[in-house]
Amino acid sequence: MKKLFLAIVALTVFGGAASALAQAPASAQTPAIPQTIKLLEPDKTRGQSVMRALDNRRSVGEYSDRPLSDRDMSDLFWAAHGVNRPDGRRTAASAMNRQDVVVYAFTTDAVYRYNAVDHALEGVVAGDHRLLFGERGMSPLILLLVSDVSRFGDVGTLELRKEWGAIDVGLVAQNIALFCSGNGLGAKPRAGMDREAISKLLNLSELQLPMLNNTVGYPAE
Amino acid sequence: MKKLFLAIVALTVFGGAASALAQAPASAQTPAIPQTIKLLEPDKTRGQSVMRALDNRRSVGEYSDRPLSDRDMSDLFWAAHGVNRPDGRRTAASAMNRQDVVVYAFTTDAVYRYNAVDHALEGVVAGDHRLLFGERGMSPLILLLVSDVSRFGDVGTLELRKEWGAIDVGLVAQNIALFCSGNGLGAKPRAGMDREAISKLLNLSELQLPMLNNTVGYPAE
Repeated sequence: MKKLFLAIVALTVFGGAASALAQAPASAQTPAIPQTIKLLEPDKTRGQSVMRALDNRRSVGEYSDRPLSDRDMSDLFWAAHGVNRPDGRRTAASAMNRQDVVVYAFTTDAVYRYNAVDHALEGVVAGDHRLLFGERGMSPLILLLVSDVSRFGDVGTLELRKEWGAIDVGLVAQNIALFCSGNGLGAKPRAGMDREAISKLLNLSELQLPMLNNTVGYPAE
Repeated sequence: MKKLFLAIVALTVFGGAASALAQAPASAQTPAIPQTIKLLEPDKTRGQSVMRALDNRRSVGEYSDRPLSDRDMSDLFWAAHGVNRPDGRRTAASAMNRQDVVVYAFTTDAVYRYNAVDHALEGVVAGDHRLLFGERGMSPLILLLVSDVSRFGDVGTLELRKEWGAIDVGLVAQNIALFCSGNGLGAKPRAGMDREAISKLLNLSELQLPMLNNTVGYPAE
């Protein structure tokens, strides 16, 4: 990701009092917010057909240590939940078009949140937090899918809103799966994770629900 | 679908006492089970790239009356949840590989259930039942996605099992969306429907949950 343009943002502190803490060096207790990473415009000319990607679709759990190229990283997030129309609509549908799914990226360096409108990765918290996903933390990249069911307001029951959120998470996850299987990458979804610890790290509300994580990488040779 | 091979199956009666009712002509009260339709082997050489399909992905709600061609019908079901490996695994992942999602097809003639192992549509109930989906019943084809959460056994809580089922439904639904956007068809998912009436028609258990329906067709000119 080094070649990507790093937006110059003020160094502030996650979850703390910025004015006091900005003068202190970042530490494990007060991790700095990583800089925003502007992604490359998606290359819509690349890759295999949908039918080939479906034929190749499988869960890949063993990866090379090689980090994703800037090109693959940029296209992966657009594929997952990018804007594909001038009105801001996305590559995946969502209940009532509330676009409730938020994609977080756990890298070797930090945690980012995908901003689809800006096609950028916004820093959330510094540091390598992949081990929150247990043995899956050995993967070079983990995409966490969170449904913010508060976006559905008070329509229906909370149980139903959670069901919509889970369906919407599935739609985005299959975009990830088919982007990967059609472009030489591997991915593997899993629902199991330490949801409490992850919610705390990301400062999620009770209505922002971590539902699925996807490891992503180049398949091991 | 007329050109597809129609397997010769005994005419039996849905949900009734076969011995008595088989002698009576089929009626609205005792609809016959439609014959099994063997689908064509999927054409894995066709269609647009994943990236193009993602770029074209949108919810299409207005369709031509033209029924799907045998080729499109066959490839649609394989794409949605077909077998893509010798061990029986599918084009979409599922929680613990329990393959909980069942795809039902509501056509102008009948309701079918997709049998992925045989790549065939098994008759469930005769007649046009599309109006169970309200105004969406004007669409030439509706794919209903049911999660059979009984496949998860007693792992986790029932709430968690329903969440897994909903995610799995989303994975299959996005296969439908991208098959359609990459191959000249339109589709539109929706969670709202008369779940009680649909469960009754299909004789579903309390753990077989209709979660999402997808209209599919050729976009209106």
